[in-house]
Amino acid sequence: MSKVYHGYAAMEQGGELERIEYEVGELGGDEVEVKVTHCGICHSDLAMIDNEWGNTKYPQVPGHEVVGVVSEVGAHVGHLTVGQRVGLGWQSGSCGCCEWCNAGDENLCATTSGTIVGRHGGFADYVRAEGRFVVPLPEGLDAVNASPLLCAGITAFNPFVEYGITATDRVGVVGIGGLGHLAIQFSRAYGCHVTAFSSTADKEMEARELGADGFVVSREPGNLKVLARSFDLLLVTANADLDWSLYASMLRPRGNMCFVGIPPSKLSVHVFDLISGQHCLSGSPIGSPKTIGRMFDLAVQHQIGAVTEEFAFKDVNKAIARLRENKVRYRAVLVHE
Amino acid sequence: MSKVYHGYAAMEQGGELERIEYEVGELGGDEVEVKVTHCGICHSDLAMIDNEWGNTKYPQVPGHEVVGVVSEVGAHVGHLTVGQRVGLGWQSGSCGCCEWCNAGDENLCATTSGTIVGRHGGFADYVRAEGRFVVPLPEGLDAVNASPLLCAGITAFNPFVEYGITATDRVGVVGIGGLGHLAIQFSRAYGCHVTAFSSTADKEMEARELGADGFVVSREPGNLKVLARSFDLLLVTANADLDWSLYASMLRPRGNMCFVGIPPSKLSVHVFDLISGQHCLSGSPIGSPKTIGRMFDLAVQHQIGAVTEEFAFKDVNKAIARLRENKVRYRAVLVHE
Repeated sequence: MSKVYHGYAAMEQGGELERIEYEVGELGGDEVEVKVTHCGICHSDLAMIDNEWGNTKYPQVPGHEVVGVVSEVGAHVGHLTVGQRVGLGWQSGSCGCCEWCNAGDENLCATTSGTIVGRHGGFADYVRAEGRFVVPLPEGLDAVNASPLLCAGITAFNPFVEYGITATDRVGVVGIGGLGHLAIQFSRAYGCHVTAFSSTADKEMEARELGADGFVVSREPGNLKVLARSFDLLLVTANADLDWSLYASMLRPRGNMCFVGIPPSKLSVHVFDLISGQHCLSGSPIGSPKTIGRMFDLAVQHQIGAVTEEFAFKDVNKAIARLRENKVRYRAVLVHE
Repeated sequence: MSKVYHGYAAMEQGGELERIEYEVGELGGDEVEVKVTHCGICHSDLAMIDNEWGNTKYPQVPGHEVVGVVSEVGAHVGHLTVGQRVGLGWQSGSCGCCEWCNAGDENLCATTSGTIVGRHGGFADYVRAEGRFVVPLPEGLDAVNASPLLCAGITAFNPFVEYGITATDRVGVVGIGGLGHLAIQFSRAYGCHVTAFSSTADKEMEARELGADGFVVSREPGNLKVLARSFDLLLVTANADLDWSLYASMLRPRGNMCFVGIPPSKLSVHVFDLISGQHCLSGSPIGSPKTIGRMFDLAVQHQIGAVTEEFAFKDVNKAIARLRENKVRYRAVLVHE
């Protein structure tokens, strides 16, 4: 039996979003339908609206930081029930049978499918995904603050799990925006000494309130040079081209500079920047459903959540305009009235 | 009591080596004197002769793949005795008291000193180093084949220890030269499936004899494209600028491209090359004395050794010329008559 959903869609490249109706077929046996209550707005939504990665099909309903309530459950989905509060992020499907899926590392599957790649996402009344990508929200996690955890949060969190970060590691967070302000909170929760890097001094007080032990104005190269051999993990959340050799020099031996933001140009470092201190450059792609679940639990335990600005769904274009102007502190969340 | 040593020194940038005498002071309490029997010739020796890194002081006696016999032991050195067969590599000193030195990771010490940086090396009758950098050679290890293990070998071997490589990892060795032909042997000893990458087909038979399970002519991009998501470790021993994005695409999820050669230009990769499969780019600096010792034991156990060309010390310039012409298969070793 088909249904009609309502969502806000980009009708053309870079266009304003318009409210549309679209028919969906019968729910698959492995699928879950979620009635959306909240949806964060991510820079990747803008990239899809603008067809920046060349894979957008219009009309396109964005939205992949979904919090909602399970409204229908496919016949083969065992871990969810109607009425349950859940989250859905960037990934909504995978092959389900490769070594990575079998290990619960679905984000590393070669045939991953995205919530808004070739399908409609969470700027809507309902959204669908394969059941295994729909993660229960624990009690005590506020829906608004949790919503950005589904993409910004898991992206910043995954390296902590993946690289086995512990309290004795010294962390630097480069860029204090949507991802960075969450990365500071995760660092604090892990018990790490954490230093925030921002291009200007404006965000120092906020960064310290979020848990930063140190704050560095990164525009002055001298401020970085004195920090040679200081960090075990540099988590780069900035979407900017920086002097990566200089940043690498701040790594302690065996240190890791992990990119979770997307600098526009290619990274340029000399192999000596890696060899002399046995450094590595790494990148981290979102996180698996199991890691999202662990992040949720940690967020409850340590009261981690995004600093948000709320908008009604009907004001989605206003919210997007504000995001494009880089004015949102730190994540915009759409809320159904 | 001072002594006189004899060595072959570059008298000026890029110059031919000449036999010189030089006086050395009393042996330090932490030092060991080694009577040189063999010394490999490494590309880093050429770099020092040519002052490529700007830190050469002439006259300069190169040589940092030393095998010899202990001829004098400082008062505070407890683990060596006169007459013992030993090896000495690139590193001959460190601070001795930092967290890295205390952990036996002296190669990561910030104040490391090099056997031929500001001092004379192993193209000589005698050479000195701090005792902890003089590593006993186990019985059963041939001096000629072992000599290149002191720099080429440990550089190729260290990533296996550092990154916890095991038999289930699939390894690619990029570049079949001094380091690469040893990396293939280490991969085989670790029980890994190993693929050799070479720009031409010339070295296929040798690579297979050394233990390569696969051989790829890397000049054809198509040969690399079909190997997407194939390798857990790509060990880059080539000193060339290659298409690193294409190479990164051959990494399996969580794969590591580790540079032990020195491409002349900066590495250029897009952050997407790292993010999508959670890849990392790393570099590895020689190895600590304890790791050299473990490599020696493995070399005995698995009959690993460099393929060498032997030269008398007096023919050092002939050997260097052949190395500059890239004709040596695979390492040149100077031998005292």
